[in-house]
Amino acid sequence: MEPEVVVVGGGFAGLAAARVLARFGVPYLLVDARNHHLFQPLLYQVATGFLEAPAVAHPLRSLVKGGRFLLARVEAVDLKGRYLLLAGGERLPYRRLIVATGSRPHPLGIPGAAAYTYPLKTLEDALRIRYALLYRLEEAARRGAPFRVLVVGGGPTGVELAGAMAEFLRHVLPRDYPEVPKAQVALLEAGERLLPSFSPGLARYALGALERLGVEVRFGAKVAEVFPRGICLQGGARLAGDLILWAVGVKGNALVGLPVDPRGRVPTDPCLRLSQHPEVYVVGDLNGLSWPQLAPVALEQGRHAAFNLVRTMRGKEPLPFRYRDRGQLAVIGRNRAVAQIGDLGFYGLPAWLLWALVHLAELVGFRNRLLVLLDWAYTYFFREPGVRVLLGGPMPGTFLGEGPLILPAPPRRGPEEPS
Amino acid sequence: MEPEVVVVGGGFAGLAAARVLARFGVPYLLVDARNHHLFQPLLYQVATGFLEAPAVAHPLRSLVKGGRFLLARVEAVDLKGRYLLLAGGERLPYRRLIVATGSRPHPLGIPGAAAYTYPLKTLEDALRIRYALLYRLEEAARRGAPFRVLVVGGGPTGVELAGAMAEFLRHVLPRDYPEVPKAQVALLEAGERLLPSFSPGLARYALGALERLGVEVRFGAKVAEVFPRGICLQGGARLAGDLILWAVGVKGNALVGLPVDPRGRVPTDPCLRLSQHPEVYVVGDLNGLSWPQLAPVALEQGRHAAFNLVRTMRGKEPLPFRYRDRGQLAVIGRNRAVAQIGDLGFYGLPAWLLWALVHLAELVGFRNRLLVLLDWAYTYFFREPGVRVLLGGPMPGTFLGEGPLILPAPPRRGPEEPS
Repeated sequence: MEPEVVVVGGGFAGLAAARVLARFGVPYLLVDARNHHLFQPLLYQVATGFLEAPAVAHPLRSLVKGGRFLLARVEAVDLKGRYLLLAGGERLPYRRLIVATGSRPHPLGIPGAAAYTYPLKTLEDALRIRYALLYRLEEAARRGAPFRVLVVGGGPTGVELAGAMAEFLRHVLPRDYPEVPKAQVALLEAGERLLPSFSPGLARYALGALERLGVEVRFGAKVAEVFPRGICLQGGARLAGDLILWAVGVKGNALVGLPVDPRGRVPTDPCLRLSQHPEVYVVGDLNGLSWPQLAPVALEQGRHAAFNLVRTMRGKEPLPFRYRDRGQLAVIGRNRAVAQIGDLGFYGLPAWLLWALVHLAELVGFRNRLLVLLDWAYTYFFREPGVRVLLGGPMPGTFLGEGPLILPAPPRRGPEEPS
Repeated sequence: MEPEVVVVGGGFAGLAAARVLARFGVPYLLVDARNHHLFQPLLYQVATGFLEAPAVAHPLRSLVKGGRFLLARVEAVDLKGRYLLLAGGERLPYRRLIVATGSRPHPLGIPGAAAYTYPLKTLEDALRIRYALLYRLEEAARRGAPFRVLVVGGGPTGVELAGAMAEFLRHVLPRDYPEVPKAQVALLEAGERLLPSFSPGLARYALGALERLGVEVRFGAKVAEVFPRGICLQGGARLAGDLILWAVGVKGNALVGLPVDPRGRVPTDPCLRLSQHPEVYVVGDLNGLSWPQLAPVALEQGRHAAFNLVRTMRGKEPLPFRYRDRGQLAVIGRNRAVAQIGDLGFYGLPAWLLWALVHLAELVGFRNRLLVLLDWAYTYFFREPGVRVLLGGPMPGTFLGEGPLILPAPPRRGPEEPS
């Protein structure tokens, strides 16, 4: 019953590896702590209510044809004993292993960042941001106070989040929150420009597009400390914020037992294997080679590792990984995006159309494509993010509480309930 | 700034009242502990993965045109002082009041029911059922064990839940959970027939349709006690169940300070007012008059109370409420439903088509209609419930935990996180 290959992680890298293994008829077991593959590039639209959560997630079980799936959290790996330690204490032996556990948000040692900012990496993160946005808007409405969102980090995630937040507030505020006199989004970047991986011209375009949406962009803004409702910058300036989003700093999400570099990523040989344990491949954001942490890189590394694994099973030598840059896209708002494909850069409507096409094409699952298309069409025509349902809720003593959305605890009832 | 009318609750009754007030230009404030109106008749489809949560919910703020909205939990009413007490201690004065806080699940004094069964009343309830279903299926897959769902109650909710669960398991199990050898749904009804508000012939049809879906229906099954994984019936029989759904027993969800009858409902005069306090109307499931607790009744009571309120503001006498029965529908599965319209009863495809049409027409919001239509078309053609994403998750020590989906707590990070 022991599978030939165990793949840990069902993101872009792990899923791509599993699909290649299936194609070659290699039995595998995919282990993930979540039951879904997540299309991370559109996660910021879930956070801002433009897409519903199920549109960017797909059940892993229906994707692992040719293999098996196990819902479990892997705590550690014993490289010598060749087994994984699952949460709960169970051991899962492997013959060959592909580790694709990705990266996770990192507070960069800044006091208060872990406690008071919202990162955006998982579907739960996205919903937490959406609920916090809706809830804090209600608070602002109750006080008749202005509302401010702070976004930390001027990379693609920060730019996309700031743009989508600004569009959300611009469309929703005047219609639904007349009590809130003013809303603003501020984007804080420690360096001197946005989107460092794009050309300077595209970064300038992105800056202009954000400013046209009303986003205040601050350069050289290094965060010194985060408080429950604000940020203190190096130099002493203070910025108030009702919602603080953390779009800087990720760290490799390595399993205990793997060697890691200072960024938490795992060094491998050019064929993506541990040098001391060539039966273990490490792919995607977790891989410590110098490739960028992007979805297409993860996808190609996953594929490549599976190909190499099949080659070695057949007695052939593995091949070194090479990434052919397929370009980068970032979207700022309705009809506005930037595209960098090698030395070619373009922006505006053409880049936005390319972005929409590429993302629709790369989404996993027909149903997800339909949902995203429908949501986009709705937003495009009605200029309104459609998903503004506050769930789970319950601030003790203020909301109606049926208990938080946790599992698999038994259902909880209100305090007045007999039983 | 004090509004003329305060409406408590944004369900069918409260929302209908608010709309009539808006039509007559009466300023009102709608207070609800949730930010959305919920289309309860389709909630069981959210619980079973056939619809995503945002499809059956609509933000109240965009529905209260002509009035204002306040997100707050109302704890009590002081009828003499004419104010509401909000959670947190704030007082909200009113001149005229419409109470539409509905009903809530009730464990009927059965030991273990509140702790180990899942009711279905709110959107959170529906998601809790869906997550429990998906999570417990994973557990069963891990053990290679059969899976059984117990549904308590043979009214419309129980019948619809049992049918949808059976369809879910029938479509999803063979494709995605080959490790689970067998799955079954059992429906427990204390009486001798299903759907007591429908004709005996339609109840027999529903029974046959459920049995064709593989549902085991047990009559005269009175629950004596509920355990974490099973039920003990009066008489001593024990039934094992991995998931126990509670579709019997609701109680009026009255505000503290209102007079209540033994069912927790509030007695009113025929004009829907408190006899001692004619400035207070009670409508919907909470109203203690002998009308059935159905969505169309709630809707018409809400409208009627608002009309009466406008009449009294103009010095006219209020009118007694009368409900013209518009019929009842219940769906059992693909192409199978029952319809009772007065003495006319029909079933099968015609009833199913009528059910689909009526529900699409009555859904609030264009976007919700689109989503529901898309989801239904998808399920109809692919015979697959599309929403099978497990969220929030984290059983301590088994799942990857980022903390439950609660608000507005600051984001939590994994235990390995510094800071």
